[in-house]
Amino acid sequence: MASYRPATAEQAQLHDDLVAAGHLVPTDAAGIYGQGPDFVRVRTGFTDAVSRLAAGDAGVETMAYPPLLPRYQIEKNGYLGSFPHLAGSVFSFDGNDGAAAEQEARAAKHEDWSEFQSMTDLVVLPAACYPVYPEIAKRGPLPAGGVIVDTGDQWVFRNEPSGDPARMRQFHMREFVRVASPEDIAAFRNLWLDRTVGLFERIGLNATSEIAADPFFGRVGRMLAANQRDQELKFELVAMIGGPEPTAIASFNYHQDHFTLIYDLGFEGGAVAHTGCVAFGIERITLALFRAHGMDVSSWPREVGAELFR
Amino acid sequence: MASYRPATAEQAQLHDDLVAAGHLVPTDAAGIYGQGPDFVRVRTGFTDAVSRLAAGDAGVETMAYPPLLPRYQIEKNGYLGSFPHLAGSVFSFDGNDGAAAEQEARAAKHEDWSEFQSMTDLVVLPAACYPVYPEIAKRGPLPAGGVIVDTGDQWVFRNEPSGDPARMRQFHMREFVRVASPEDIAAFRNLWLDRTVGLFERIGLNATSEIAADPFFGRVGRMLAANQRDQELKFELVAMIGGPEPTAIASFNYHQDHFTLIYDLGFEGGAVAHTGCVAFGIERITLALFRAHGMDVSSWPREVGAELFR
Repeated sequence: MASYRPATAEQAQLHDDLVAAGHLVPTDAAGIYGQGPDFVRVRTGFTDAVSRLAAGDAGVETMAYPPLLPRYQIEKNGYLGSFPHLAGSVFSFDGNDGAAAEQEARAAKHEDWSEFQSMTDLVVLPAACYPVYPEIAKRGPLPAGGVIVDTGDQWVFRNEPSGDPARMRQFHMREFVRVASPEDIAAFRNLWLDRTVGLFERIGLNATSEIAADPFFGRVGRMLAANQRDQELKFELVAMIGGPEPTAIASFNYHQDHFTLIYDLGFEGGAVAHTGCVAFGIERITLALFRAHGMDVSSWPREVGAELFR
Repeated sequence: MASYRPATAEQAQLHDDLVAAGHLVPTDAAGIYGQGPDFVRVRTGFTDAVSRLAAGDAGVETMAYPPLLPRYQIEKNGYLGSFPHLAGSVFSFDGNDGAAAEQEARAAKHEDWSEFQSMTDLVVLPAACYPVYPEIAKRGPLPAGGVIVDTGDQWVFRNEPSGDPARMRQFHMREFVRVASPEDIAAFRNLWLDRTVGLFERIGLNATSEIAADPFFGRVGRMLAANQRDQELKFELVAMIGGPEPTAIASFNYHQDHFTLIYDLGFEGGAVAHTGCVAFGIERITLALFRAHGMDVSSWPREVGAELFR
């Protein structure tokens, strides 16, 4: 079980303000929250605004997947090597009446019943784009111009228990995934960086762009992160949520040939395909809006409401 | 790992039709599907129609929770005793660089890496209403008239791998939960049974009402199920999906004092509170609509479209 990172005083204050206003509902598990009606309204209002950004784009496919992913995919795509500390795997019971009774007896006393559980073929979805690559791969060579997929809002999981409300363990990520030539990926990333900066301005979020790296695990991970920064493969837009530093609320990622090699994605005739994505952390953006504009949605600036609540 | 139940010929045909039309996207795991754009449109259209049914009701609270639930709650509420075979628990990694490398090496070969995973404080959400009871309990005595909660569409999990498209392992359940006097629960259940029968008629679903029982586990479970039927605690509306029998698509449940005793829910002064709920199996309803009206949504009867796509 990953260790708990307590909130700073500022993070705890934001948490308590959100709870008092009914926006977040704490549970018995760190980083797992119920969401109140205004929180849901802002969250869905934001993602509707993202939909409007993409509404004129040609050839965007939508794909919707459940919050559990076949285990096979994280065994294949390298996630367990890079982010073992963030992964969640699903276990289940497959015993007889006696084992079920013993399991229940222990569980009812909140004692350890893990020995009755064994690994299933499922894990908790770590990233919105992970179901997309195998599905694109099934179709054979890429069509000319490549592919754009809108994952919609997907529940994803990162096992990092924290008192910081910005660090939820399960939250919605929405991604636009591009599988295309390296040039098209670069153009796609720039387009979405511009669009997103514009949208954040319209909703009153003071977000700045940074070169960033993924939270890779361990000693090898530190090298991977340094390499990712050196090559400027990841940009983030960061905004103030619980402080002390701003938190990433959107990221713009260039995976080079990572996924195309793993899933054997390429164009007819052998032209190289790469992948990239833009990812929105929907709950973090919602939190940044509450931080920026206050707990009472009815008092938010009119132009912000006009963008979010159409 | 629960054993796989293959599809009948009729179920396999429906599955293949749905896949060919792009409504369901199979994955490497049984009962875990991606959903195509028209499937999502019908699914969200149906749940919007349910929202309209409830729009005039006074005092309905909305609560939204993630697809993972604190493990503590299924230890406390008896789920593991009644449905151990359907539960999923979340495990995670908490080791050093060496263990991470060994885990990844085994996973990359699709070998067993379960020994590196240990139980977390989370399980996969089994029912949309489970986060509701502890939250209501936190508030103290119930207000006069009790409580009504709309869970919205929640991803829930039942570990029953099957080739029958109607038996998904993760799907949306929407519940309206009532905590109130036994009389108010009865009235609530009748109201929703009538409303739902009316809605299903308007969308062209030939659904019939049956006395039903939950899929309790084992020998004791057979007695629990018989008792539940004898007392008429559960009604289901069933409709044809993959056959051969109709499948439950909505249920109307009276829990008596099961949850109110566990969570110590009661009225000021000690008047007895019970709970009940109406639950919609949103994917099954969507599937029943495709079964009834065909794979091409644009050819569905005009009055069905008028109800679903406003």
